[in-house]
Amino acid sequence: MSQEKKYAVGIDIGGTTTKFGIVDAHGHILEQDRIPSNEHDDVQDFINDLHARLMPMMNKVGGINYFVGIGMGAPNGNIYTGTIEYAPNLKWKGIIPIAEQMEQKFGLPTRLTNDANAAAVGEMMYGCTKGMKHFITITLGTGVGSGIVIDGKIVVGHDGFAGELGHTIIRPGGRPHWSTGMKGSLEAYASATGVRDTAIEMLTKHPEVPSLLRNYRINELTSENVYECAMKGDKIANEIFEFTGQILGESLANFVMFSSPEAIVLFGGLTKAGNLILKPTREHMEANLLPIFKNKVKLIFSQLKESDAAILGASALVWE
Amino acid sequence: MSQEKKYAVGIDIGGTTTKFGIVDAHGHILEQDRIPSNEHDDVQDFINDLHARLMPMMNKVGGINYFVGIGMGAPNGNIYTGTIEYAPNLKWKGIIPIAEQMEQKFGLPTRLTNDANAAAVGEMMYGCTKGMKHFITITLGTGVGSGIVIDGKIVVGHDGFAGELGHTIIRPGGRPHWSTGMKGSLEAYASATGVRDTAIEMLTKHPEVPSLLRNYRINELTSENVYECAMKGDKIANEIFEFTGQILGESLANFVMFSSPEAIVLFGGLTKAGNLILKPTREHMEANLLPIFKNKVKLIFSQLKESDAAILGASALVWE
Repeated sequence: MSQEKKYAVGIDIGGTTTKFGIVDAHGHILEQDRIPSNEHDDVQDFINDLHARLMPMMNKVGGINYFVGIGMGAPNGNIYTGTIEYAPNLKWKGIIPIAEQMEQKFGLPTRLTNDANAAAVGEMMYGCTKGMKHFITITLGTGVGSGIVIDGKIVVGHDGFAGELGHTIIRPGGRPHWSTGMKGSLEAYASATGVRDTAIEMLTKHPEVPSLLRNYRINELTSENVYECAMKGDKIANEIFEFTGQILGESLANFVMFSSPEAIVLFGGLTKAGNLILKPTREHMEANLLPIFKNKVKLIFSQLKESDAAILGASALVWE
Repeated sequence: MSQEKKYAVGIDIGGTTTKFGIVDAHGHILEQDRIPSNEHDDVQDFINDLHARLMPMMNKVGGINYFVGIGMGAPNGNIYTGTIEYAPNLKWKGIIPIAEQMEQKFGLPTRLTNDANAAAVGEMMYGCTKGMKHFITITLGTGVGSGIVIDGKIVVGHDGFAGELGHTIIRPGGRPHWSTGMKGSLEAYASATGVRDTAIEMLTKHPEVPSLLRNYRINELTSENVYECAMKGDKIANEIFEFTGQILGESLANFVMFSSPEAIVLFGGLTKAGNLILKPTREHMEANLLPIFKNKVKLIFSQLKESDAAILGASALVWE
């Protein structure tokens, strides 16, 4: 007896939290929940935990027979192999064949991709780039993630690892990255971590300039503090966003001259700063574009919740 | 009476010279010739001249009825519109509907694309990336051109102008570009022009260091001179190639983290320097890649003559 497949599971494995949901074919998230990503030394325990949480949710909408499959996004998730490979922020080291392990546990077809790519697919299917064939998503969170869409398809490259724009070098010889050690990468500046590091640099470099930011202990300082102080008119805090936007804008100009997208969509914590980050980013992007590209690219904030985009995008992997 | 279409015309419009040829379906160039690109104030005169040269060549292989069409590569050539738009190095200003004008003159379907993209297609169909689905070509000539292939297709972006990698910024605030005025673009360093400018900078900055390059008048100095002096062991000349390779390698690393290609193919005059340019380029590319990309990307010189690649690639546009 064949049954109509009406639902998909979407799972977004982040460095800290794994979010998952039941998604219908129209992109509605009917149920969702979350578990920590890094409390299971063995990936099989993590899968068992996921299974225990998901089965009741799946039964609520009719049971496993109504499900077309499971889509997953994860750091360093490879769409070709279904494996998570050497993800620096996850506990499971080496190469993890998680798609296969999920299939065995759930008995459902499972597809995996990079988490940032999953978010880009979600944006394309259900967000502000619906119908666009050429765009780039940039997640400004603890790090900088990216998903590139060309001709309506996610760019994964010959080995499945394309789209690591956060690690491109924009200040050769510049600030070392906290984890890769590479000097001057976009992520070292245009992430929440980067904003904090810029704050510390500027406060140290200009001890004579008064700033509300000096009321925080250095090891407590966050990008949110910088945002709050900037909104109160603090000079250094505003300069931090101006500088962050400059670096991000210069990088975006380079990306535009690579793939000439119709839009660039910004996600993630730093976008809460609104125009404080958007205005300098746009200015410096435009200033660094060839005339042929100027005033063409839409630079917009995502209207989807970041976790929704990733769950939706992951689920979309199994509808194809 | 229908006749088998056995041939295509391939035309490569360069800043100085326009090369064209008769190409068969196996990628053999049966006939070829050239005319200057910039001696016709009116593009219609240029087309008339092309027609006068091409007709005898076409008749030699049986006449126009054996031809499937005409493919053209040109600076700022747009595959979507068939127009050359605001090409800084050509005499014809504004937007030139050259594909349509060619169709009217020849009575054959005509397709146009960017010259660097045409070369990449030629490389993919008949050169060292035959069968590869993901690669990038970089032309190191007077300027720096590029063609990007993803999933076996040239990346043209939403407006047809993608792939301007020579204009990406790799030294923010650095050397101004001679024509765009942008600061620190790849082309300002990793082109024949850039090598000459680096030579002048280094000679001026270190007047105490002896160099064979000081035997040339500054306004006569070329990248070929730098190559010859480097081969004779000249210290500054060798440093010029080391520096050029560093900048190129850093840029290539950024491109790899964008689209994760299987290979990067280098064309153009500077490649005559062989290992003088290849070695530092490879070193600095590898040094700036995330571990996941290291030692994976083939960095190779094209084996096609640059003009052949563009004629072949242009002709390939009409076989599809």
